[in-house]
Amino acid sequence: MERVFVVGVGMTRIGRLFEKHAKELFAEALWRAIEDAGGLKPQAIVVGNMTSSVLMQQDSLGALLADYAGFRGIPAFKVEAACGSGGVALYAGYALLKSGLVDVVAVGGVEKLTEAYTETVTRALAQAADADYEVFYGVTFTGLNAMIARLYMNTFNYTDEDLSYWPLKMHEYASYNPYAQLPRKTTLKEILTSPLIADPIRLFHVAPIGDGAAVILLVRGEERAREISKVTGRDVLVEVASVSVATDSVDLSSRRDLLTMESTVLASREALSKAKLTIRDIDYVELHDAFHVTAYTSLEDLGFAPKGAAVKLYKDGMFQKGDKPEVNFSGGLKARGHPVGATGVYQAVEAVMQLRGDFPGYKASNPETAMIHNIGGISTIAAVAVFKRVK
Amino acid sequence: MERVFVVGVGMTRIGRLFEKHAKELFAEALWRAIEDAGGLKPQAIVVGNMTSSVLMQQDSLGALLADYAGFRGIPAFKVEAACGSGGVALYAGYALLKSGLVDVVAVGGVEKLTEAYTETVTRALAQAADADYEVFYGVTFTGLNAMIARLYMNTFNYTDEDLSYWPLKMHEYASYNPYAQLPRKTTLKEILTSPLIADPIRLFHVAPIGDGAAVILLVRGEERAREISKVTGRDVLVEVASVSVATDSVDLSSRRDLLTMESTVLASREALSKAKLTIRDIDYVELHDAFHVTAYTSLEDLGFAPKGAAVKLYKDGMFQKGDKPEVNFSGGLKARGHPVGATGVYQAVEAVMQLRGDFPGYKASNPETAMIHNIGGISTIAAVAVFKRVK
Repeated sequence: MERVFVVGVGMTRIGRLFEKHAKELFAEALWRAIEDAGGLKPQAIVVGNMTSSVLMQQDSLGALLADYAGFRGIPAFKVEAACGSGGVALYAGYALLKSGLVDVVAVGGVEKLTEAYTETVTRALAQAADADYEVFYGVTFTGLNAMIARLYMNTFNYTDEDLSYWPLKMHEYASYNPYAQLPRKTTLKEILTSPLIADPIRLFHVAPIGDGAAVILLVRGEERAREISKVTGRDVLVEVASVSVATDSVDLSSRRDLLTMESTVLASREALSKAKLTIRDIDYVELHDAFHVTAYTSLEDLGFAPKGAAVKLYKDGMFQKGDKPEVNFSGGLKARGHPVGATGVYQAVEAVMQLRGDFPGYKASNPETAMIHNIGGISTIAAVAVFKRVK
Repeated sequence: MERVFVVGVGMTRIGRLFEKHAKELFAEALWRAIEDAGGLKPQAIVVGNMTSSVLMQQDSLGALLADYAGFRGIPAFKVEAACGSGGVALYAGYALLKSGLVDVVAVGGVEKLTEAYTETVTRALAQAADADYEVFYGVTFTGLNAMIARLYMNTFNYTDEDLSYWPLKMHEYASYNPYAQLPRKTTLKEILTSPLIADPIRLFHVAPIGDGAAVILLVRGEERAREISKVTGRDVLVEVASVSVATDSVDLSSRRDLLTMESTVLASREALSKAKLTIRDIDYVELHDAFHVTAYTSLEDLGFAPKGAAVKLYKDGMFQKGDKPEVNFSGGLKARGHPVGATGVYQAVEAVMQLRGDFPGYKASNPETAMIHNIGGISTIAAVAVFKRVK
């Protein structure tokens, strides 16, 4: 089976982009990726998106985006897996390419959240939870995560302050990222006195709502990738070593253990095994920190920390500059932003740029391998991909 | 590249299935397909669905269905391409299998339309049209198709009666189909005096709204398929010879020719070419007749009739029993029913059963090749697949 390489990446700044339609955001990211790949054009487009049906009243999103970007005719479709849509689109696009059905695939993600009323967006995002068993009873998505956070804190004896070191660092990293939605530093005091959203989760513990689009361009075969490198003058190749997806229940009530995200465990194990690597080989990680507690359970369930230990390790300075792995130097969902269905593709773009050494923000220490981790719901679905630098 | 075979199919009756949730419908179809495949279980699920986000307020649909059906853990995601979601899910599932990422894939479609108010469903289905350029101005999806129908009738000089032979035959075929939503015959008089929905389209010219689910199970490699045949005792194999997808604009205003569905033309040509067949080799077809005019433009754009001639040819008795190809013996979207995101998978199930000789309704004349054609919007996206019987 031929190997798959990333030959171009593009993204827009994340924010309240009132002046731009989703199709404009997508076209902007796609054409940046095409330019980054020396002009190479996609033969198919797979796009991750969560809320276009509900917030834009628009289906057939794949065709709409392809047409507007100048690619009317080619296969183009939307993949929906809630906030994990981008990561799962990467899985589907990777399969499309590996299958031999097409030779160049654009995997994109786009989301447009800020034009609706906050209540409408809160309801739309709650669709990641179980409509019949959870949302019907009035809980929001933040409410469900707050219960997980409280259980985690009680079980492992952590305080609000202990968990707040994550957002503190994320804001610092984002302050260097020109694409970030919240590129500003914060303080523990500001975090701990920010408004309560759903006890114990405060405003500064949770990812903001934003608009954005990101795209990566993939090709099959090392020879093809090297040809493109000649055009772009880039001397490193980035290989997609593996992409894995696993699922769990949507409703939390039927989980075996509320503090272990089994789909993250499964997807991480499979992605590493398919990439012929172990968890110790990973130099750089972009993981899914929609809430502070999610960052910690993700570190644990991906395999980077024992269960319950991630908060202490992070507070002690692990996973930061010079450590292995270095984690979320983009600023994460927390501060780079979380345009839900696009987030997984942002992570892929950032991981690729860190491997190439051209990420325009806080730089990792010359990583050779990178992992991304994107989830839908409370890890109802997890996508984990491993990227490798190839000389 | 290894070949792909269908080893099991399953579907539910289509109708107003108030007593069943979408996840129950899907599980029923999936387990029928598993039984049909001698107990073979899927390693991944790709599901076509259009309206779960809007009508069920439920995202993460793939994981929800996988979990309920007993497959928590495996990769499972939703593909959205409006009414073409089922056909496009087949494309994504076929790619997933051909890529080697998994060895057994269940491609499913499910839709639950009848629990919402009719107006809500009308609005949900209009999301297949352009939200900004079309629906915003008040047009419904039937309204847009009515304009196409009027233009077609004026351009090629046909009457309401001329176009009504299609639904007349569809109802006849459906009367033999135990899975059909409208298994009853009708008359030209009943069709021509049925209520006007959007002039010139009358109630009996258009597909009904219904609930249903269908699943096909695919494996890679002839050897694997033959092993399963030993278990099931089936002596014919059905190969997926090709699956192709093409797109067009969502809005009609930017089309070159309102009566030529270019994505259908493109997808048909590519599917035939990849299957190494010509249009004359196709024995049996299930095509997308959401409206009477859609049946005729589809026959033309797939390549079975010259532009403008399909109505006359159909009225003269072509595409019926003993002809080549025989078309829509299921009763079509018109009378078998049209659970939108599931329709493409119903077509695949029916085509496979006709090739195997075990379709429980109106039987084709021992076909060796079959084509299915499923579209989203007004052929904004078209999926065409070719199936072959292999001894």
